[in-house]
Amino acid sequence: MSGGPSPRVLRLGMVGGGSGAFIGAVHRMAAGLDSRFRLVAGALSSDASRSLASAKELGIEGFRAYGTWQDMLERESALPRDQRIDAVAIVTPNATHFAIASAFAQRGIHLIIDKPMVTTLVDAVALREITRKAGVVCCVTYNYSGYPMIRHAASLVRDGALGAIRKVVVEYHQGWLATPLERTGQKQAAWRNDPSQAGAGGSIGDIGTHAEQLLRAVTGLRIRELASDLTTFVDGRALDDDAHILVRLSGPNASAKAKGLITVSQVCVGEQNNLTLQVYGERASLWWRQEDPNSLTLATLDGPTQTLTRGTVASPSATAATRLPPGHPEGFIEAFANIYRGAADAILAKESGPTAPTATTYPSVEDGVSGIAFIDACIRSRAANGAWVAVGE
Amino acid sequence: MSGGPSPRVLRLGMVGGGSGAFIGAVHRMAAGLDSRFRLVAGALSSDASRSLASAKELGIEGFRAYGTWQDMLERESALPRDQRIDAVAIVTPNATHFAIASAFAQRGIHLIIDKPMVTTLVDAVALREITRKAGVVCCVTYNYSGYPMIRHAASLVRDGALGAIRKVVVEYHQGWLATPLERTGQKQAAWRNDPSQAGAGGSIGDIGTHAEQLLRAVTGLRIRELASDLTTFVDGRALDDDAHILVRLSGPNASAKAKGLITVSQVCVGEQNNLTLQVYGERASLWWRQEDPNSLTLATLDGPTQTLTRGTVASPSATAATRLPPGHPEGFIEAFANIYRGAADAILAKESGPTAPTATTYPSVEDGVSGIAFIDACIRSRAANGAWVAVGE
Amino acid sequence: MSGGPSPRVLRLGMVGGGSGAFIGAVHRMAAGLDSRFRLVAGALSSDASRSLASAKELGIEGFRAYGTWQDMLERESALPRDQRIDAVAIVTPNATHFAIASAFAQRGIHLIIDKPMVTTLVDAVALREITRKAGVVCCVTYNYSGYPMIRHAASLVRDGALGAIRKVVVEYHQGWLATPLERTGQKQAAWRNDPSQAGAGGSIGDIGTHAEQLLRAVTGLRIRELASDLTTFVDGRALDDDAHILVRLSGPNASAKAKGLITVSQVCVGEQNNLTLQVYGERASLWWRQEDPNSLTLATLDGPTQTLTRGTVASPSATAATRLPPGHPEGFIEAFANIYRGAADAILAKESGPTAPTATTYPSVEDGVSGIAFIDACIRSRAANGAWVAVGE
Amino acid sequence: MSGGPSPRVLRLGMVGGGSGAFIGAVHRMAAGLDSRFRLVAGALSSDASRSLASAKELGIEGFRAYGTWQDMLERESALPRDQRIDAVAIVTPNATHFAIASAFAQRGIHLIIDKPMVTTLVDAVALREITRKAGVVCCVTYNYSGYPMIRHAASLVRDGALGAIRKVVVEYHQGWLATPLERTGQKQAAWRNDPSQAGAGGSIGDIGTHAEQLLRAVTGLRIRELASDLTTFVDGRALDDDAHILVRLSGPNASAKAKGLITVSQVCVGEQNNLTLQVYGERASLWWRQEDPNSLTLATLDGPTQTLTRGTVASPSATAATRLPPGHPEGFIEAFANIYRGAADAILAKESGPTAPTATTYPSVEDGVSGIAFIDACIRSRAANGAWVAVGE
Repeated sequence: MSGGPSPRVLRLGMVGGGSGAFIGAVHRMAAGLDSRFRLVAGALSSDASRSLASAKELGIEGFRAYGTWQDMLERESALPRDQRIDAVAIVTPNATHFAIASAFAQRGIHLIIDKPMVTTLVDAVALREITRKAGVVCCVTYNYSGYPMIRHAASLVRDGALGAIRKVVVEYHQGWLATPLERTGQKQAAWRNDPSQAGAGGSIGDIGTHAEQLLRAVTGLRIRELASDLTTFVDGRALDDDAHILVRLSGPNASAKAKGLITVSQVCVGEQNNLTLQVYGERASLWWRQEDPNSLTLATLDGPTQTLTRGTVASPSATAATRLPPGHPEGFIEAFANIYRGAADAILAKESGPTAPTATTYPSVEDGVSGIAFIDACIRSRAANGAWVAVGE
Repeated sequence: MSGGPSPRVLRLGMVGGGSGAFIGAVHRMAAGLDSRFRLVAGALSSDASRSLASAKELGIEGFRAYGTWQDMLERESALPRDQRIDAVAIVTPNATHFAIASAFAQRGIHLIIDKPMVTTLVDAVALREITRKAGVVCCVTYNYSGYPMIRHAASLVRDGALGAIRKVVVEYHQGWLATPLERTGQKQAAWRNDPSQAGAGGSIGDIGTHAEQLLRAVTGLRIRELASDLTTFVDGRALDDDAHILVRLSGPNASAKAKGLITVSQVCVGEQNNLTLQVYGERASLWWRQEDPNSLTLATLDGPTQTLTRGTVASPSATAATRLPPGHPEGFIEAFANIYRGAADAILAKESGPTAPTATTYPSVEDGVSGIAFIDACIRSRAANGAWVAVGE
Repeated sequence: MSGGPSPRVLRLGMVGGGSGAFIGAVHRMAAGLDSRFRLVAGALSSDASRSLASAKELGIEGFRAYGTWQDMLERESALPRDQRIDAVAIVTPNATHFAIASAFAQRGIHLIIDKPMVTTLVDAVALREITRKAGVVCCVTYNYSGYPMIRHAASLVRDGALGAIRKVVVEYHQGWLATPLERTGQKQAAWRNDPSQAGAGGSIGDIGTHAEQLLRAVTGLRIRELASDLTTFVDGRALDDDAHILVRLSGPNASAKAKGLITVSQVCVGEQNNLTLQVYGERASLWWRQEDPNSLTLATLDGPTQTLTRGTVASPSATAATRLPPGHPEGFIEAFANIYRGAADAILAKESGPTAPTATTYPSVEDGVSGIAFIDACIRSRAANGAWVAVGE
Repeated sequence: MSGGPSPRVLRLGMVGGGSGAFIGAVHRMAAGLDSRFRLVAGALSSDASRSLASAKELGIEGFRAYGTWQDMLERESALPRDQRIDAVAIVTPNATHFAIASAFAQRGIHLIIDKPMVTTLVDAVALREITRKAGVVCCVTYNYSGYPMIRHAASLVRDGALGAIRKVVVEYHQGWLATPLERTGQKQAAWRNDPSQAGAGGSIGDIGTHAEQLLRAVTGLRIRELASDLTTFVDGRALDDDAHILVRLSGPNASAKAKGLITVSQVCVGEQNNLTLQVYGERASLWWRQEDPNSLTLATLDGPTQTLTRGTVASPSATAATRLPPGHPEGFIEAFANIYRGAADAILAKESGPTAPTATTYPSVEDGVSGIAFIDACIRSRAANGAWVAVGE
């Protein structure tokens, strides 16, 4: 809301996310909300004629509506620097991310990738290397970390308000896959339950990685070890649809015995998108619930429990992520737009020279790698009947 | 989210709402969210150089950044029909609305006006006549009626789910004016408490009219009579900052004795934007709270209380106002954008011929008149020591 | 929970409240919870054989199970001082309270009377005089003021934490009379809607007086004037079943313009016993809800909103009313028992000499008079089409 | 609330629970609330003079105020059958339960024992055998299963409303041991953290067993296997103060892969007594929270989420446990009293002949054994670095 010259509006291309795709529309609204990106090019569907139709609907000029991402890559790369896309948003099924992301990065085009970043730990590490070499921004849209109160929570932990962290509980329960929806032709359900498109993780990949990233984003801790209990409740489903994961945590704000608990499910009848976070420190605790994202509860050893609200808290990271006064609810799109805003800032920072964008501004390729390492460890623990396994590359 | 050819993007001009103004930014985000409007012209400040600077910041082309609304009116009117603005958003202090709105309407430019529409009942009625004659859409941004669950509530009442309405309680409590903020130079507070800019109503105009419109939008009833108890708690303030208003209601869904209660305040310490609605019918009741807008509670004579949630309810008006799946919170901007979407539909309907836009699609000039009649009656009842007075033109 | 010699257990008689009566059972559980009273005598029903049967069921010795309250009065009065009842609990329909209470008081037996105390203002004033002359305790069971968090709220107001009180909103909504239940033979509904038994007030007497007393108990203010809008929604019902009441308040903690709003209803479908209180002062505000009585919300001009909880607050009046640690919910019976405990303390204080029991300990005959004056003023305002009328004796 | 002859009031003795002990006072209020028990004897403290002083305070006649439980046992046993205590409430530290309970049972005196029942699995099995042989009722006061809405939840599961159970999450978080309170001389903290008094479990014994019993009471399932992660966060503490426990479940209502998650902690700053239950079935789900015990949330595959409330639900077990109408909160003591009421019914059933009290009426010795088996398995899993272990005798 500050004055001053407005920043350059970035040119965005999109791969996937054609008409009817939920997450594509979200990315577009998020990219546009603050007028930091303009969608100028797209390869919006794996079906070329659908891709062109979607582009038309979205107001993309005909000559930049591509039938394939390879076309888009070639032809955008050939445009003059001040016309070609600055960044590409990749919102296709997981298994295609690596090839697309690598290719665009190698042409110097910045990346905005939906989570999980890729499908194997090898690919994750490789993509990190590729983006580093290419010097491009790689933003993984862990959108829940874009909520202002999550940013405030992180700042409270960082500033020591909680003391050393002892225990973290993250619950992420959905119910939309309680029945075999994937067998009804529902596209979202279908690819998420197909290992060749989704990778080795079902619920742990689709939403477990959000839980893992949120835990890290708020506490600054990393998961050192975990023990998992993965379940497939719906008969005939190929991937897990429920997971209990015990974790052990390390980091600068951690108690020596810091631990956590992640429960993830997509078969919890009646749950919508119930992501909750509880962080318990030696001196204070925090609770937050995604379905009521504008407040954050803080309890201390002494004194009454406090309800902190968006628009009234002082941390710069929360303030920067806030558009409206208190009591005027901001939601999912606004939080998602904060991720895009962070990516835009980072991309423009690259333009201005060698300034390294800070890890706190947007979920980076490191977050992407961490998510894949988490999935990998869950799978290994399952194979060992729930034994504790180390998490890492 | 439907397919099909995308509708024409409308050209929007804005009067007021320059850099730093809260409501201007909201209008811009709301107008842009669904890509139904593009801001192409502006007279954004009563100070010409600030107006130009703001326009530049917002990406408005230099030649359409006007120093005054009169300039904008003249020069836009002179543009070819396919270039000039389709609609003007008026987000200036109330007392200027009438002159600006009348002038633009008379040139055939559609109106989107912040509430309260004007400052006197005479002007309200006159503006209704002007817009009718000019054949323009006049949308008054009663944004709270844009929430999907409010639309669902209205549909439940309309469909008879509540039976005859007996009692309605609307509470709209804020706390930001609990101290004499207007004396600190805060611009929002200053003009709202200056009768020459705000009109005769303080809290009743600024937020009471929202309460009145929400009551009508959900119940379909009109306020036939009212008795008011207006108070100015902060010393030296010229207008009311708190109001208790008893109302008697009439309409197709009403019990013969239907009544209501509106409490409005801007001096309730700790309240943010606490607009709540309780509707009690002979067979069922509804509760809704703006700060938690994605759900609606329905209680019936028999059976347990139900929590209805955005994205799971079937009424077409709610569905059309919904962008995201359940559990992915939508907020204030999204609801505001639904008002803009309704205005866009109505404007395009005008293009296609004599189709009258339906009253349910967007808050119209009738809502604008009703709000001013409400303020007028509150003031008259106060003058009569709280006696019951008729409400109307 | 303190040590020391336990206080003498008082002997209690009961008039009304036989087997099957809701409020009689509540009085008995409340009287017994802290072992401060023992029920030893009863005239439990207006039907003598039912009265005896009920007494037997409740373990009252046969010779103290009386067929009428007059019998009980005569025969208990004839017993030696150390055997006869110390106090009588009067839980009959309102219209009988005055005769019973007067008679027992005149024999020096302390009174515990359900609200409203009597049915006319003349009787209320007369009973006050009678109890004063007789030197007996007269406790009116305004049980909601017995909740620990209500006592803490009162102490916060008294200590100035809120600054001068500006505005109070009390809502008391029930739904059990949304249909003509009194015509089905339901006894509770029948007498409450019969003016010859209930008096001139329907909902305003049955629950409005609770709202009025709670307002006074917490704020220490009195209602100077009021304007009422009383309604009878259910056809054929003789008394009001819904009321909107605007009030003007005076007292030591009041802003010069202090005001309030009371909404009372027994026809709100889906409401159970939804008594809520909002108190707004110049510096802070309080919210409380009877259906979640163990917490109290405090908001201040600066700093986050606080949730205060029973068992963690320091005011002596709240602490004395608390039996269990935080998080172990106390409810309706416990609050009611606090009223009985206050009465027991007051009665024992009388034994120890001329110590006047303090007004804060239990709702007294003054509260009883105030409630009747409130009903009286509501009725007078209604007769004057909702005009403002003075409240008082 | 029914009529009919009132049941015989049972004579209760108490071991432990002298003046100042929290749980002793709770047992006394619970035993007395429905006038089903009268406290007539006590060995209230391990210190004889304190025991006598406490008895005097509680109105126990001098000759039945015993210095030791052995005295009480001998002298009560010598009394005529119609004078001696019917039952003994054992509210001493865990390690003493077995000796006391065995001795009283062998004299034919019924047992009401605080949880955990004993401290070793061997003792648990032995006590079961002793009580069977003696033919006495052994009620273990798992009070949370006494809440009406918990009973209704169990009835919904039993009746198949949820379909096969897939997943259960029980969270029981307290914060009172977040600091080394036991080193300050606080008695409650001291014995709970002393293995010689508390047994091998810290938080898992004190509150984990409540979680385990609640899971079983509602779902009817048993824990077949578990994997535990126990932690002692506070330095110098001898027992666990936090636990994450993964469980696998079996039983008639279970999905083949039914699983659960229990998180228990006494070091969660700001938590009071936050016991919550989430049960997810194939067709519906339930949520309940002890700090708001009067409601229960039910979500189904189709249709809106429902809030079920005490006093409005039809299951006989919930109705029988309900004293007050909806909206009049019942709390912890009332739920505890339901356990006592169940024990009283069972004891009287023994008098009337060989009727076996049903398992649903009160938490029995089987629940006691199950709790100890749970602690035992948690300890074994910890010793095996969190490996899955079988649970059982």
